Amino acid sequence: MKRKIKEMGWDENGREVEHIYRALGGETALNIHNIFMKTISALGTDEQIAKWIPLASNYKVLGTYAQTELGHGTYLRGLETTATFDPKTQEFIIDTPQITATKWWPGDLGKSSTHAVVLAQLYSNGKKYGMHPFIVQIRSLKDHSPLPGISVGDIGPKMSFENVDNGFLMMRNIRIPRENMLSRYSQVLPDGSYVKKGSDKINYFTMIAVRVNMLRGEVLEALMKACTISVRYSAVRRQSELKPGDIEPKIIDYQTQQQKLFPLVATCYAIHFTAQYVDKFYHDVYSEIRKEDFNSLPELHALAAGMKAYATEICSNGVEVCRKACGGHGYSLYSGIPSLYTKVTASCTYEGENTVLHLQVARFLMKCFAAVQTRSPLPASTAYLSSPATDACTARNAADFLDPEVYLTAYEFRAYSLIASAAHKMQNLVGSGAEQYLAWNSTSVELVKASLAHSHYLTVKIFISAVTSLSDQPEIKAVVKRLCDLYALHGIFTNAGDFLQYGYLTGKQLDMATTAYLGLLAELRRDAVLLVDAFDYTDEQLLSALGSYDGNVYHNLLEWAHKNPENKKVNPVFETYLKPFLHSHSSKL
Amino acid sequence: MKRKIKEMGWDENGREVEHIYRALGGETALNIHNIFMKTISALGTDEQIAKWIPLASNYKVLGTYAQTELGHGTYLRGLETTATFDPKTQEFIIDTPQITATKWWPGDLGKSSTHAVVLAQLYSNGKKYGMHPFIVQIRSLKDHSPLPGISVGDIGPKMSFENVDNGFLMMRNIRIPRENMLSRYSQVLPDGSYVKKGSDKINYFTMIAVRVNMLRGEVLEALMKACTISVRYSAVRRQSELKPGDIEPKIIDYQTQQQKLFPLVATCYAIHFTAQYVDKFYHDVYSEIRKEDFNSLPELHALAAGMKAYATEICSNGVEVCRKACGGHGYSLYSGIPSLYTKVTASCTYEGENTVLHLQVARFLMKCFAAVQTRSPLPASTAYLSSPATDACTARNAADFLDPEVYLTAYEFRAYSLIASAAHKMQNLVGSGAEQYLAWNSTSVELVKASLAHSHYLTVKIFISAVTSLSDQPEIKAVVKRLCDLYALHGIFTNAGDFLQYGYLTGKQLDMATTAYLGLLAELRRDAVLLVDAFDYTDEQLLSALGSYDGNVYHNLLEWAHKNPENKKVNPVFETYLKPFLHSHSSKL
Repeated sequence: MKRKIKEMGWDENGREVEHIYRALGGETALNIHNIFMKTISALGTDEQIAKWIPLASNYKVLGTYAQTELGHGTYLRGLETTATFDPKTQEFIIDTPQITATKWWPGDLGKSSTHAVVLAQLYSNGKKYGMHPFIVQIRSLKDHSPLPGISVGDIGPKMSFENVDNGFLMMRNIRIPRENMLSRYSQVLPDGSYVKKGSDKINYFTMIAVRVNMLRGEVLEALMKACTISVRYSAVRRQSELKPGDIEPKIIDYQTQQQKLFPLVATCYAIHFTAQYVDKFYHDVYSEIRKEDFNSLPELHALAAGMKAYATEICSNGVEVCRKACGGHGYSLYSGIPSLYTKVTASCTYEGENTVLHLQVARFLMKCFAAVQTRSPLPASTAYLSSPATDACTARNAADFLDPEVYLTAYEFRAYSLIASAAHKMQNLVGSGAEQYLAWNSTSVELVKASLAHSHYLTVKIFISAVTSLSDQPEIKAVVKRLCDLYALHGIFTNAGDFLQYGYLTGKQLDMATTAYLGLLAELRRDAVLLVDAFDYTDEQLLSALGSYDGNVYHNLLEWAHKNPENKKVNPVFETYLKPFLHSHSSKL
Repeated sequence: MKRKIKEMGWDENGREVEHIYRALGGETALNIHNIFMKTISALGTDEQIAKWIPLASNYKVLGTYAQTELGHGTYLRGLETTATFDPKTQEFIIDTPQITATKWWPGDLGKSSTHAVVLAQLYSNGKKYGMHPFIVQIRSLKDHSPLPGISVGDIGPKMSFENVDNGFLMMRNIRIPRENMLSRYSQVLPDGSYVKKGSDKINYFTMIAVRVNMLRGEVLEALMKACTISVRYSAVRRQSELKPGDIEPKIIDYQTQQQKLFPLVATCYAIHFTAQYVDKFYHDVYSEIRKEDFNSLPELHALAAGMKAYATEICSNGVEVCRKACGGHGYSLYSGIPSLYTKVTASCTYEGENTVLHLQVARFLMKCFAAVQTRSPLPASTAYLSSPATDACTARNAADFLDPEVYLTAYEFRAYSLIASAAHKMQNLVGSGAEQYLAWNSTSVELVKASLAHSHYLTVKIFISAVTSLSDQPEIKAVVKRLCDLYALHGIFTNAGDFLQYGYLTGKQLDMATTAYLGLLAELRRDAVLLVDAFDYTDEQLLSALGSYDGNVYHNLLEWAHKNPENKKVNPVFETYLKPFLHSHSSKL
C-alpha cells in the first residue's frame, strides 16, 4: 500500500490516502510509524527533521513511539526509563532499570520497528529534568535482529488489533548520540547543562495531537458504522406484535428500539461537529505555539482531554447498544459490529485513561472556578462560570424544550452546579482541616461528574452553533436541528438527577422534556435510514451481513454461513469423540 | 469428561460435577444436550422420559434445543417452522417453509447433535394450535451424515463461544412418528384431535428454568471473576500521585477506582442472594405445577424474566467496568477479562432479549396495578403496589441513609411511582382516543424503566432479608450489611433522577445519600480483597496474569509474553515486506 501511494504520487495527508485508510477501517500495519514521524516533526530541531523525516518517509527506518511502561501508564512522571547524559562520550545512556520500566504496548514494536522515540527521564550532571524524547535504534537494519542490550517482542493477544504487533522493549544501558534527543524545546549542551526553550508542556503536544485526530478517525467512525448497520437492519427485521392481528412490525417502529438507536445517530452528528471544532481549535493553538505563544495550551489540553474521555466512552457504549439492538444476529461476527466494539473500547484507555483525563479537566475547571473569585479572565470554553444562570428553567410545556436556548441553559446550569458543588465540597474539607490531596481524592467522584457535564455542555453548544450555521439551507437545517434537539433532550432524560438536584428543572418540567424527547423519536423515524446512509459507507467498508445497502439480511447470513470453510470439512469430532459413545451399544433407533 | 464422570459414578447434578463445570468456566461442548434432556423430562410423558432419557444420558443420542429461527427470536408466536399431523400415517411433517424459518443458533447443532427438540407451530385437521415441542432426528447414528431433507451446519464465528458449534437447520417435510411430540401437557390423538392437559404457559417452563439457572451459573460467575481480578490488581498496581512527594499509591486507594469496583463487589453479593431466592421460588412453583396448580406461574415468569434482564445487563456492564479499571493491561487477553465480557454480554440477548423481557414484566406490573383498583389480591412480589408510601423521605443526615428501612422505602416509592406514571400515561392516551397498542408503544420506554425499577427494588429487598438472616453471626452481618448499604446507595446515586422526580428525595437528601455512599467506599477498602477472595477462585479458574492470588502481576505478564509462540518464530514479514524498503538504498545509519 505504501509503495502504491508513492507510485501514484499521493500526498500522505491528501484525500486519496484518507480514503484508503477509511476504506481499510484502520486494519493496516505500521500506523505508529506516522506517530513516530509526527513526533519528530513536532519536537525535533530543523536539523533533526531534515535527517530523520526523509529516512522515515522512505521507510529506510521504521519507527514506533515508546512511552507506556509495564508498570506505568497515563502518569508520565512515573515513567522509570532513564536517559543519563555522559559528557565524556557525548552520549545518552538509555536504560530500563527494572521489570516495571519495560516499555509495553507500543504498536509496530513487537515485530517491525527498527527505531523508537523513547520517552525517558533525563538525567544530566546528577540532576533530573523529567521526561524527554530520544530516538533509539532497536533492531539491525541489515538482518532485523535486536541490537545488543535490547530485548524486544510481542506482548501477546489482545481483545482486538490483531493487525498491530504491540510490543515490549527492555534496554540495558544502550548508548545513543547526544543528537538523538529531540531538541526543539529543550536541549542538553555538550557540557551537560540543560537549556529550556519553551514550556515543558510542549512534550505533551504529541499526545494532544493524537487525541484530536482519534476523535474523528477512530472513535466516531466506529459509532457511525454501528449505527448504519443497526438502523438498516432495524428497517428490515420484523418481530413480535404491535397491533393485534397485524403482521409483525419492523423493529424500527418500536419506541424502545428508536430510543436505543436514534439518540446514537444524533450523537454521531454531535461528535462530528465537536471533532471539527476541536480540530480547528488545535490548529489555531498549534500556530500560536509555533510563535512561542503557549497561552492557550492549558485550554486546548483540557478541551482535547475532556472530549477524548467523553467521546470514547459515549461511542464505545453506543456501539454495544447498536450491537445488542440487532438481537442475536448482532453477536455473530458476520454482523460486523463485535469487531467495531472490541476495537473502539480500547480508546477509553489508550492515549490517556478516561478517568485520569477527567480529573485533569477537573483540575483545569477548579482553576477556572477559582479565577472567577479573583475576577481573573477565563478561557472562552469556561466563560459561563462567571455568569451562571440564577433563575430556574421557565419552560411551561414540552414544546418549550425544543428551544436550543432552553436546553443549552439547562446544560450550562448543570455543569456550573456540579463544578461549584465540587469546589465547595473541597473548600469545606480543607476548611475543616483535611489536607488538600485528601480533599481532592474525597471529591474525585464528583469531580469526574463535573468534567463530564462540562464536556457534555460544550458538545451541545457546538452542535447548536453548527445548526445555526446552516441557516441558508433551511431543509437541511430542520433535520439537523431535530438531531440536535434529540441529542440534548436524550442527555437530560438519561442524566435527569443532575438537572433536578440543583433545582433547575422541576419534576413536572422533566416530564415535559421527556414528552418532547419521546416525540422526537417518532419524528426521526422517517429520516433515520437516510441519516445513516449519509455517513456514506460502502458495503465493503461495513463488512456486515446485516448492514448491506440492499437489506438482504437473511440471504446474506445464510450465504456467509454456507461459505464458512468449517461447513466443508469432515467433522473430526465425530470419529474421535462422538462415535465411540453413539456406537457403544446397539441402538434401538 | 463425560466418560470420567460416569466412571466415577458422580451424579450429574451433584457437587463434583458442579465443581468440574465451575473449574472449566463453561468452556465445554455438549452443554445444550442437558437442555435437551431437561426439556424431555419437563414436557415429556412418563413413557417418553422412559424411552429418551436413558438414551440421552448414555450419549447414544446427542440432543439440542432448536427454537430460535433466522427471522424470529424472542417472539415465539412468530416462529414459522410447522408440524402438521398426518392421521393417515400417524406422523407429524416437520417443515421450515422459507429461509426465515431456518432454525438458527442452537448450540451443539452445527457439528454434533443427532437429535433436536424442535419447537414448531402445530397444525392438525387444518387447525393451528401454536408452538409445541417435537423430537426430530437430524443426523445418521451410523455415519453422522444429515438425514434426507435435512440441511444442517455451523452458523459461523461469534463474539465468543468458540467451544460451541451453534448451528442452522432446515427441514424439508421431515416425517416423525406421532409419539415424538412431547405430550405431558398437550397431545394429538390418533384421529388428529388436540387435547390440552394444562396451562399452555407450561411450554415456556423450559425457558424459565434456563433463565433461573443462568443467573448463578453464567452471569454472576463472570462478574465475580472480573471483580476478583480487578480488585486484586488494584491492590498491586501503583499509579500517579496522591500526596505530593509520596510514592505512587495503590490504585485501589483512589476514590474513583473504589467507585468503579466496590459497588460491583456489592452487586455480586446482591445477585448471589437474588439468585438463591429466585431458585427457591422456582422450585416451589415447580412443585405446585407438578400438582397441576398454575397459579404462581405468572409471578414466577415475571420474576425470572425481570431478574434475567436486570442481572445480565448489570453483570455484563460490570465486567467491562472491571476490565477498563485495569487500564491497558485489562485489554490484554492475559488479563482474563476480555473473554469474560465477550461471553457474558451474549446473555443480554439469549434466553429472551432484555427489552422484550422487561416489557413482559411491565405487562405483568400493569395487570397488578390494575388489580389494585379493583381490590383484587396481588402476588407477594407486587404487594407494595397496594400500599404506596405517601410521605416523602424523612432522612435528616447521611447516617440516616444507612438504615435499610429508609432506602428500601425509597426504592419502593421509586418503583411505585414509575409504574403508576406509566399506567397513568397509558390511561390518558387511551382516554384521548389512542388505540391500546399505540398507547402501549408510546409508553414503552417508560415501561422498561418501571420494570427495571421493580427488579432493582426486589434485589434490595432480598439483600436486606439476607442481612437480617445473619443475626447470629454479628461480625459477618456487619460486613454484609455494609455491602447491602453500598449496593442500595450506589443505585440511588446512579439513578438519582427517579428518586428526585417524584419528590421522594430532595436535592439536599440526595447530597446526604451521596455522602453516605462515598463514605462506604472508604470503609469497604479494608475488606475489599477479602470479599473477592471469598468467591474462592483458584488461579487456574481465573486464568489471569493480573488476578493471581500472589499478586505477581508484572512477572506474570512478562513471562506469559515470553512464552508466546509468536516470539519464537522468525518474522516472515521482515524478509517479504520490510527488507525491500529498508535495503532499497544504502542506508546512512
